[in-house]
Amino acid sequence: MHTNFESQVFYKEEVDLSFADKDKDLLIIDRAVLPFIKDKIKNWKSVYEVDGGEYLKDWKNATDQIQLLCQMWGLSAHRNSRVIVCGGGSVGDFGGFFASILKRGLPLVHVPSTWLAAIDSAHGGKTALNVGGIKNQVGTFYPAQQVYIFKNLLLHQAPERAVDGFGECLKMILLNGPGAMESADNTQVTTLDEFLWFHLKGVVQKKYDIVFSDPYETKGARKILNLGHTLGHVFETSTHKSHGLCVLQGLIFSLSWSVEKGFLDQEQFHKILSLIKSKNIAIWQDSKDHVVLSEYDLKKLLLADKKSLGSNELDFVFVKNEGQAFCEKVAVDDLVSEARRQGWVK
Amino acid sequence: MHTNFESQVFYKEEVDLSFADKDKDLLIIDRAVLPFIKDKIKNWKSVYEVDGGEYLKDWKNATDQIQLLCQMWGLSAHRNSRVIVCGGGSVGDFGGFFASILKRGLPLVHVPSTWLAAIDSAHGGKTALNVGGIKNQVGTFYPAQQVYIFKNLLLHQAPERAVDGFGECLKMILLNGPGAMESADNTQVTTLDEFLWFHLKGVVQKKYDIVFSDPYETKGARKILNLGHTLGHVFETSTHKSHGLCVLQGLIFSLSWSVEKGFLDQEQFHKILSLIKSKNIAIWQDSKDHVVLSEYDLKKLLLADKKSLGSNELDFVFVKNEGQAFCEKVAVDDLVSEARRQGWVK
Repeated sequence: MHTNFESQVFYKEEVDLSFADKDKDLLIIDRAVLPFIKDKIKNWKSVYEVDGGEYLKDWKNATDQIQLLCQMWGLSAHRNSRVIVCGGGSVGDFGGFFASILKRGLPLVHVPSTWLAAIDSAHGGKTALNVGGIKNQVGTFYPAQQVYIFKNLLLHQAPERAVDGFGECLKMILLNGPGAMESADNTQVTTLDEFLWFHLKGVVQKKYDIVFSDPYETKGARKILNLGHTLGHVFETSTHKSHGLCVLQGLIFSLSWSVEKGFLDQEQFHKILSLIKSKNIAIWQDSKDHVVLSEYDLKKLLLADKKSLGSNELDFVFVKNEGQAFCEKVAVDDLVSEARRQGWVK
Repeated sequence: MHTNFESQVFYKEEVDLSFADKDKDLLIIDRAVLPFIKDKIKNWKSVYEVDGGEYLKDWKNATDQIQLLCQMWGLSAHRNSRVIVCGGGSVGDFGGFFASILKRGLPLVHVPSTWLAAIDSAHGGKTALNVGGIKNQVGTFYPAQQVYIFKNLLLHQAPERAVDGFGECLKMILLNGPGAMESADNTQVTTLDEFLWFHLKGVVQKKYDIVFSDPYETKGARKILNLGHTLGHVFETSTHKSHGLCVLQGLIFSLSWSVEKGFLDQEQFHKILSLIKSKNIAIWQDSKDHVVLSEYDLKKLLLADKKSLGSNELDFVFVKNEGQAFCEKVAVDDLVSEARRQGWVK
C-alpha cells in the first residue's frame, strides 16, 4: 500500500526496464506495445498481455481477468513484488485497480505508452472500472510509486495519438500559471511530438501540485482539472472521436465562453487558437456540421455525465488568465444557450 | 473516501438507526439479522439482504453482487451517501469492499451483529474477499467512518457466538497492558455476554491504538494482533470449528510456549487458564484427540497461511507479561517440536 500521491517520475530517452525484478515483478502490458518492447522482457517470468480499450475496463471482464491474475501470479507474489503496467489509460486503470486490491495493495509502477497516459492518467492516483456500461463507476485512489516515461516508446505511437495528447497538454499549460503559455507560444519545436515532450515535465508537475492539494477529491481543488471536459465528454459520446481531440474542442468552447463572459481577453484567446492552428490539428471550429446537436440531446448528455450536480446545475471550469482557471456552477440552460451561440446546437 | 483509521465508535444498549438517512443510504444486512431489525427499517428505500458466510466473500459471487448493487443503488448514490453494513465478519468484509470502490469510496458505517465483529473485524479498516478459495487474497484498507455497537443486537445471537468472541476479546485483554488482566480476573460479571460487554470498550480502544500506529501494516506494529492466530488458523482449517474457539486454543498454545521459553510466569498462565475455565468454555486442553495432526499436515497448514515468510520461518507472537506481547521469527521445525510437546502432533 502506497499512500504518497507524489509519485517519483523518471524521464528517459529510451526504454530501460532495469528497475524491475524480472523474477518477482508482474508486467501487465498492452498487446499492441509488446512488439516494441519484447526484446527487453525475454527472460521475464510473469508477463500478462491485455488488449487495451474500454472492454478491458468492463467489470465482468476485468474481474475474470483479476481472478486469473490472482491464480497465475498472486499466489507467488510478495508484499513488495511490483505490478508494472505498460500501456495507455485503460491498461493503467485495469492494472492499477488490480495492484490496489491484491493483498490490499502492492507497489504499482506505470510505464505509459501513450501521450495521454504520460501527460495525464498515469499520474494522480486514480484507478477505475466500468460497471454495466457506466464509465468509471468503481475504482480506487491508488497512486503509483514510480512512473517511467520513455520518449522512444511515446514516439513509436501513431501520429493521431499525439493529437490526443495535445488537448490535455494544452489544458495543463493553461492551468500552469503565468509564463507557461508564453513558453508554449515561443517554443521552437515544430512537430507535435517535440511540443509534447518539451512541455511534459512542466504539465506533469502541475498535475501533481493540484492532486497533492486534494488527493481524495474532497476539497474541490481537483475540479479545475476538468477544464474542457464538460463539453469534451459530450463530444466524445456523440462523435466517438478520440478523448484528446474532444477535450481540445471542449477547451476551445470553455475559452470562448470565458471571453464572452469577460473573464478572458480576446487577444489571449486568439493566441491560443493560433497555437493550436500552428500544430495543423484539424479542429472543428470552422465545420461543426457533423457534431451539431439538438438541445434535447445536449441536455441528456450533459446530465448523464457524472460531474452533474443535479438536474439544473453543472460544475464548469472557466479560464480567467493563464493559471487562473476557476470552477463555477452554471445553469444547464445557460450552457445550452452558450452552445447555441457557438454553433453547436441547432 | 475516508482515510482516518480512528473510526468513531458508539456503544448503545438498544438498536437505534436514527443516524441513517433512510432515503439516501444503503443498508447491506445479513438475512439472519433482518427479523430482529425489520421494524426499524420499514420505510427504508435501499435494503440489500445477503447470506453471511465465506461464500459471500467468494470473488465470483461477490463481484456479481457488486454489479447488481451498482445497478440497483450505485447510479442514484451521491458521494456522501453512506453504505451501512449490518452483520458479522463476512458481511462486513463484503460490504466494506463494496463501499471502498463505489465512486472510489463512499462513507462506510459498520453495525456489527456478532461479538467477533464488534470486538475485532468492524475496526481497523481492512476489507477482504477470497479468490478461488484463497482466503482474503484481495481487499482494501478502508476504515469505517462510524461503528455502532448495539448491546441488544449482540445479545440476540446464539450463545456459541459469545464463545467465538471470547478468544479475540481475551487476546486483546492480554495485549492491553498492566491491569487489564487483573480487571478481567476480578470482573464481577458472570455470564460470557456480560464479560464481553464489560471489556468491549477497552479492547476496541486497544485495537485502534495498534492500528493507528501502523494503519497499512507496513511497520510491523499490527503483527501482535496475530497473537493466537498462527495455530488458530491451523486449527480452524483442520477442524472447521469456529474462528473464535480456534483462536482461543491458539492463544493457549502461545501462552504455553511463552512459559516454556521463560517469557511468561507459570502463575500468570494459570490465572489466564482459570479465567477461561470459569467461563465454562469447552476448550480442548484435556482432550485433544480430535485435533491431533501429523507433522506433515501441520507444516503444510502452517505454510499455507499467508503470514508465512518463506519455507523455514514464521512470525510468531509470544506473551511476556500482559501488555508485552512481541513478535519473533521462529523456525517452522521449532514450532512443530513445540506442538509435539503440547500434544498436538502425533
